[in-house]
Amino acid sequence: MTHPSVDPQKLEKLAEVAVRVGLQLQKGQDLVVTAPVAALPLVRLITRHAYMAGAGLVSTFYADEEATLARYRYAPDESFDRATDWLYEGMSKAYANGAARLAISGDNPMLLSGEDPAKVARANKANSTAYKPALEKIANFDINWNIVSYPNPSWAKQVFPNDPEDVAVEKLANAIFAASRVDVADPVAAWAAHNANLAKRSAWLNGKRFAALHFKGPGTDLTVGLADGHEWHGGASTAKNGITCNPNIPTEEVFTTPHALRVEGHVSSTKPLSHQGTLIDNIQVRFEGGRIVEAKASKGEAVLNKVLYTDEGARRLGEVALVPHSSPISASGILFYNTLFDENASCHIALGQCYSKCFRDGANLSPEEIRAQGGNESLIHIDWMIGSDKVDIDGIAADGSRVPAMRAGEWA
Amino acid sequence: MTHPSVDPQKLEKLAEVAVRVGLQLQKGQDLVVTAPVAALPLVRLITRHAYMAGAGLVSTFYADEEATLARYRYAPDESFDRATDWLYEGMSKAYANGAARLAISGDNPMLLSGEDPAKVARANKANSTAYKPALEKIANFDINWNIVSYPNPSWAKQVFPNDPEDVAVEKLANAIFAASRVDVADPVAAWAAHNANLAKRSAWLNGKRFAALHFKGPGTDLTVGLADGHEWHGGASTAKNGITCNPNIPTEEVFTTPHALRVEGHVSSTKPLSHQGTLIDNIQVRFEGGRIVEAKASKGEAVLNKVLYTDEGARRLGEVALVPHSSPISASGILFYNTLFDENASCHIALGQCYSKCFRDGANLSPEEIRAQGGNESLIHIDWMIGSDKVDIDGIAADGSRVPAMRAGEWA
Ligand SMILES: [Zn+2]
Ligand SMILES: [Zn+2]
Ligand SMILES: [Zn+2]
Ligand SMILES: [Zn+2]
Repeated sequence: MTHPSVDPQKLEKLAEVAVRVGLQLQKGQDLVVTAPVAALPLVRLITRHAYMAGAGLVSTFYADEEATLARYRYAPDESFDRATDWLYEGMSKAYANGAARLAISGDNPMLLSGEDPAKVARANKANSTAYKPALEKIANFDINWNIVSYPNPSWAKQVFPNDPEDVAVEKLANAIFAASRVDVADPVAAWAAHNANLAKRSAWLNGKRFAALHFKGPGTDLTVGLADGHEWHGGASTAKNGITCNPNIPTEEVFTTPHALRVEGHVSSTKPLSHQGTLIDNIQVRFEGGRIVEAKASKGEAVLNKVLYTDEGARRLGEVALVPHSSPISASGILFYNTLFDENASCHIALGQCYSKCFRDGANLSPEEIRAQGGNESLIHIDWMIGSDKVDIDGIAADGSRVPAMRAGEWA
Repeated sequence: MTHPSVDPQKLEKLAEVAVRVGLQLQKGQDLVVTAPVAALPLVRLITRHAYMAGAGLVSTFYADEEATLARYRYAPDESFDRATDWLYEGMSKAYANGAARLAISGDNPMLLSGEDPAKVARANKANSTAYKPALEKIANFDINWNIVSYPNPSWAKQVFPNDPEDVAVEKLANAIFAASRVDVADPVAAWAAHNANLAKRSAWLNGKRFAALHFKGPGTDLTVGLADGHEWHGGASTAKNGITCNPNIPTEEVFTTPHALRVEGHVSSTKPLSHQGTLIDNIQVRFEGGRIVEAKASKGEAVLNKVLYTDEGARRLGEVALVPHSSPISASGILFYNTLFDENASCHIALGQCYSKCFRDGANLSPEEIRAQGGNESLIHIDWMIGSDKVDIDGIAADGSRVPAMRAGEWA
């Protein structure tokens, strides 16, 4: 059943890494999986490894690109303000009862690029609203969760448009396997070493307790104030349920929470952002008091503006992340049109919801306390890339003194 | 994407019949679909026709035979007392809020035949219990619902074991299309004529108001008392939400509710019963006071006994149905190993839950009133075949007088 261009041994290693490293799935724990139908071969392997790890019940919910397109092409207008609220409510209940969550990404990033942006925005908003209680349990790290990728043909053809489908799928599969560190003899050990390195970088940043970071590069002169009591994280991390997992596979970043009210200056994106089917390129925004007051883009500007109008928090930052320019994903030179990969090629910021775990003692802070310390709130969380080999970053201490953090895209 | 052996025009007609005849889907109505992953091509066509009919949201939930097998082979023992209760709760909520329901059948009927029957029974019981609130809304006909079939390769290979897969799929596809009356120029009109014929048979039986039916044939001498105030139905029928739909495609039966306490004598099955992966053949049971007091089978007797021990109502009847031996499905000579088809080849009875709609004014009867009139209650509803060209059926009036209903398997 595996696509003939996808190496079955490496796919099986990816499944094993997802269950053992990504989720650290516990004996008796339920697992909720979401996946594109094309990822069926990976779902089957993950299901087997999950049960071998002692899973109680594995429940998979498939999305189908053709069904999504049928909705845009034939559904009545009212459909676009609707969402399967009862399903998301149920998922939220499953997480509250201890289930882990695994998402397989791999949809065609351009799927909705030909559809009415107003309908896309309405459908996304309805979906985000319905999904909020479940997403909060993930964003607040109540549970162990993980996201991995499968090389769907429709995605592969976007990444490698000049190759025949089989070649494109093979190239994307191999790029996913390399970035996910499963093309080595012992992927579980490779992940342990990688996690140790990311932990070292986080520890250095946490020792410095910078008040702000200053990004300087072409089209960028941005001061990102950090939230009071922020904490840097990277790699493996412990959820509130006590399970240490790797939410993102791949991951190359160390990241924390900016102060929602203390971002000043202008910044330019360094890679295109593929947002739910639309490519947004050459973003340029200006912040005042933490709020985006000017935004433009050479492509997808209308969709960017829809995003910014989702809610008040959509104009403010929920994450800032540091990734060396020499990271394997950047070195691959591939633009994946998928945030899970592209954010790991570059330093980035995210519009919208912050992660409560990026605060000291974050698990015990109330939403009000998080807000008071500068944590942002929103229905969205959208990462976009602002790093390159031409960007320098300084850490600014509370007394205004500066320490080089990165030079020309590398750790200083 | 369609299996190359499945005629795409006929598959599209099946999708159209499912939406327009099976569901009579209304503008703005949501639709919940359950399907095997192999039925993806039919789901896509149904999704398109549903949106063209004005569906609000179409949500499809796929089941995967490989995932089911992985559970049986690798999951810890505790897994088999678990079910995705939160999902079924949500479905129940969706139906309460007006959604219609479409099930695509087509799983390999022998899927679980090699698995531990005790685990199969436990998993089925956990699932039935969790599913009960949603199933009741379907069984009580609160909503318009429909079930159609897709010729999964794994099913086709069971039905036509001596053919190569492509030939088996093509034969099963054509048998499904013929039985579902979509191999004609205007399937919607063909269904209107067929519904009119079934309505005529029901009207005759309702006019007679028999107290009981008497089945006489090889290994069978059974008197099935009918529930007080029972009503015969067949073909199109109106759900409590006011929508007239065809729940089963195909359907050839007229059916009503037996009296749970008034079934006497013995009966032999005339076709094998494929129950959740196990074949149960040559069933022989004896009833006293409506209750099965003796049960044997030449194959699958252990599973039959597990079924009978599900709950008290599992030993009593919830349905009796009349189907002429000359029905197109019987004439095809194919054993489908699938109740949706095989029950329409023959007169049958069902163990377990009755349909409240098979009572006069059933929509307004409370569960207590239905019970008082002889309606049975159970977590299960399992049809098995007791008709053949050697079975005669008499209707017995309240005064004991007899009217021939069927002779040698045909309407008298
Ligand atoms: Zn990030
Ligand atoms: Zn992020
Ligand atoms: Zn029936
Ligand atoms: Zn039945």
